[in-house]
Amino acid sequence: MHVLVIGAAGMVGVKLTQRLVRDGHLGGRALERLTLVDVVAPQHPAGFSGRIETLAADISDAALAPRLVAARPEIVFHLAAIVSGEAEEDFDKGYRINLDGVRHLFEAIRAEGARAPYMPRVIFTSSIAVFGAPFPDPIPEEFHLTPLTSYGTQKAIGELLLNDYVRRGFFDGLSIRLPTICIRPGRPNKAASGFFSNILREPLVGREAVLPVSDDVRHWHASPRAAVGFLIHAATMDLAPVGPRRALSMPGLSATVGEQIEALRKIAGERAVRLIRREPDETIVRIVSGWARRLDASRAEALGFRAETKFEDIVRVHIEDELGGALPV
Amino acid sequence: MHVLVIGAAGMVGVKLTQRLVRDGHLGGRALERLTLVDVVAPQHPAGFSGRIETLAADISDAALAPRLVAARPEIVFHLAAIVSGEAEEDFDKGYRINLDGVRHLFEAIRAEGARAPYMPRVIFTSSIAVFGAPFPDPIPEEFHLTPLTSYGTQKAIGELLLNDYVRRGFFDGLSIRLPTICIRPGRPNKAASGFFSNILREPLVGREAVLPVSDDVRHWHASPRAAVGFLIHAATMDLAPVGPRRALSMPGLSATVGEQIEALRKIAGERAVRLIRREPDETIVRIVSGWARRLDASRAEALGFRAETKFEDIVRVHIEDELGGALPV
Repeated sequence: MHVLVIGAAGMVGVKLTQRLVRDGHLGGRALERLTLVDVVAPQHPAGFSGRIETLAADISDAALAPRLVAARPEIVFHLAAIVSGEAEEDFDKGYRINLDGVRHLFEAIRAEGARAPYMPRVIFTSSIAVFGAPFPDPIPEEFHLTPLTSYGTQKAIGELLLNDYVRRGFFDGLSIRLPTICIRPGRPNKAASGFFSNILREPLVGREAVLPVSDDVRHWHASPRAAVGFLIHAATMDLAPVGPRRALSMPGLSATVGEQIEALRKIAGERAVRLIRREPDETIVRIVSGWARRLDASRAEALGFRAETKFEDIVRVHIEDELGGALPV
Repeated sequence: MHVLVIGAAGMVGVKLTQRLVRDGHLGGRALERLTLVDVVAPQHPAGFSGRIETLAADISDAALAPRLVAARPEIVFHLAAIVSGEAEEDFDKGYRINLDGVRHLFEAIRAEGARAPYMPRVIFTSSIAVFGAPFPDPIPEEFHLTPLTSYGTQKAIGELLLNDYVRRGFFDGLSIRLPTICIRPGRPNKAASGFFSNILREPLVGREAVLPVSDDVRHWHASPRAAVGFLIHAATMDLAPVGPRRALSMPGLSATVGEQIEALRKIAGERAVRLIRREPDETIVRIVSGWARRLDASRAEALGFRAETKFEDIVRVHIEDELGGALPV
């Protein structure tokens, strides 16, 4: 089996690749070939005995997708995107990558299928940013998409396009709406959502973290490991029961900042909790107030998608996957 | 005031132009200049004393929109579209006109505004085809868009784009989701929805019409005059109370075929009704079963949009506007 990952150098892309290589198979078929693409060249994963290509290229270049698709990968993970903040800052770049990039890929698959029958499965990562406040809590499965960012708009358009291409029989696939990924590995960044991870990741290793909102702020989370699990499940599950509505809100864990801190306390103790410094930031408070707090993900759950159900589990996943299984002494 | 109508040679475009010329003003400002564009050259409306240009051109040509927008029209009606059946038959053409055409227009306005401040109002005609079965009856204002045609997909994407461009401050505007227009003037056509008009228009002038579905089929209608009224209201109303969700389901009249026939009977008598020939067509029955029967349009109603409330009124509008005010003897 040949798997193409577009956006393979991003956090989720790297973890997905590691998982694919570790498993060595996908949906019961041996993984023989892996094509990894991103704007910066993805690293070769260790321990893969099959054929591997890595490529630094831009999906908004219309010539790229036909090249990638000419090799007829059976599974295409399309994870590449300009993130929310950047898509808001650079309107052209956001539409070029997040909308034109998706269309180039879908069109290339259609063109390849017109040459000779070709029916890959495309997994497109969408986001809870397709929803914009005000919305009910939880956000119903059938709630309209009212994005309040260009990024959310582009993701919603990607979902619509995927539905149409699947309906027309150009490929099979799913759009999966990822929760906010927590705990994001790496260093604190300036993303407005960064603190949800910072307040756990940093204190776990004895470093201070800033909390810009109050403890009662509620948000929708899943671990990086759960996100990879969603992608693998989407790539291997029976799609027949999904029907024509191919965008699925992934399950997540709805937790307040206070509940996050309680989980940290249980696992790393009071000393870790004391490393959280409260510095209210009105801008971040305002941005976060427009974000989803909880989604009805019962369709995805019924289709076998699973996320964490306790915040301690999210913290433990981080300790296992990022800290070698134990907290530093 | 300078008004640009893209799609001016279509049925709604012609009627909108006639109304604009007849009124001679829009929102209290004199209509000084009219630019009419369509793939076939729109006719010059009679009786307009202002400056008028008509142009046969294709909105999917990226060079067209910048030309149109360079003249800085204050109001832009974007009515041009490949209709549902054709967009389904010719996938490329549908996306080229219904998606790329919209983007070219929106981008041209943004580019014009980048040169020097420019804030036109854009009215984009969307459709109830953005909804796809199954859905509740009536379809709630907050129901997600699940189009089951490429046309509906393209209209839904146009709505999302308009929301984003308005939110970013590139122009002001609205997307209005038109009901099925009834009674469509002209000759019977092959559109699956044609019979809703045929069974009234033809018997009113003594001609037979074919009814391919049963009398209990319910659908969502508004007259051509009401549709023009929506456009004029959208172009002139205060948009501040609309908020960021700029796509509005227009009010309509939910009626069964049986109720349509009753209205015909009241106005034109039993002889007209006897001209309806029942020829069930399973294909049309199946297509129509996926269509909206009734929409919650309370947002639009609260904002002052008005449609007919009795089917007799829809028939009377046709007699007044198309038959010179009286039935042929």
